[in-house]
Amino acid sequence: MRVLRLKPIGVVKNRVKSTPDDWDKVVSKLIFRQEYVLGLYKVSHFKHLLVIFGFHRMRSTNLRVHPRHDPDIPEVGVFASRSPTRPNKIGLTRVKLVSVKRNIVTVRGLDAFDGSPVFDIKPPEDEIDY
Amino acid sequence: MRVLRLKPIGVVKNRVKSTPDDWDKVVSKLIFRQEYVLGLYKVSHFKHLLVIFGFHRMRSTNLRVHPRHDPDIPEVGVFASRSPTRPNKIGLTRVKLVSVKRNIVTVRGLDAFDGSPVFDIKPPEDEIDY
Repeated sequence: MRVLRLKPIGVVKNRVKSTPDDWDKVVSKLIFRQEYVLGLYKVSHFKHLLVIFGFHRMRSTNLRVHPRHDPDIPEVGVFASRSPTRPNKIGLTRVKLVSVKRNIVTVRGLDAFDGSPVFDIKPPEDEIDY
Repeated sequence: MRVLRLKPIGVVKNRVKSTPDDWDKVVSKLIFRQEYVLGLYKVSHFKHLLVIFGFHRMRSTNLRVHPRHDPDIPEVGVFASRSPTRPNKIGLTRVKLVSVKRNIVTVRGLDAFDGSPVFDIKPPEDEIDY
């Protein structure tokens, strides 16, 4: 089976370098590469977006994890969790859309560190009305 | 910015070779590579899963698309759609979980053709209770 090479379409800017108390309050700018600006047409239509990004600081893979890094919570398989220690270092988060201006998509609630590569954004299935 | 190489963790088996009338009725088996079976522990806990897969038959990229290939619907940016003509050929679908047996995760409603590579599965945020 073949490998898929994902090329960043943009980058996360939020100045967050370590895990904050509450990711839900974090506002992030997704700075898109100019060549993809046309693809953002009508993205402002949505209330939420699904952001697919890279866990760019994570190298290790663990197939069993304690949810929320809490040793008191029994282990589960990594695919039953949202831990970044997964075989493919991709994150996926539903965020609130704040604004779209030229090549900058501002969102709230993205749990990605500053500098994370963005690979895709998609509208939530339940908000598509066309 | 660096490229991320995604390695398939499994493959979709559903015998679907062309777009069906209703993807929601399609039952697919995700056949995981044996090396990742440990990661499936407690996946059966969930009612739904988010499946990240590859649009392995798609080569072209269009930044503007007519939703549902319908020329009567005005064009939107590809990031305001779920079209496979996106820069990175990754699909994401929320599916119903039918069963988990050894290395086989059976789901309903995955809109992926037979043979599509699977790159990740994640539990929906709203169903995690640990």
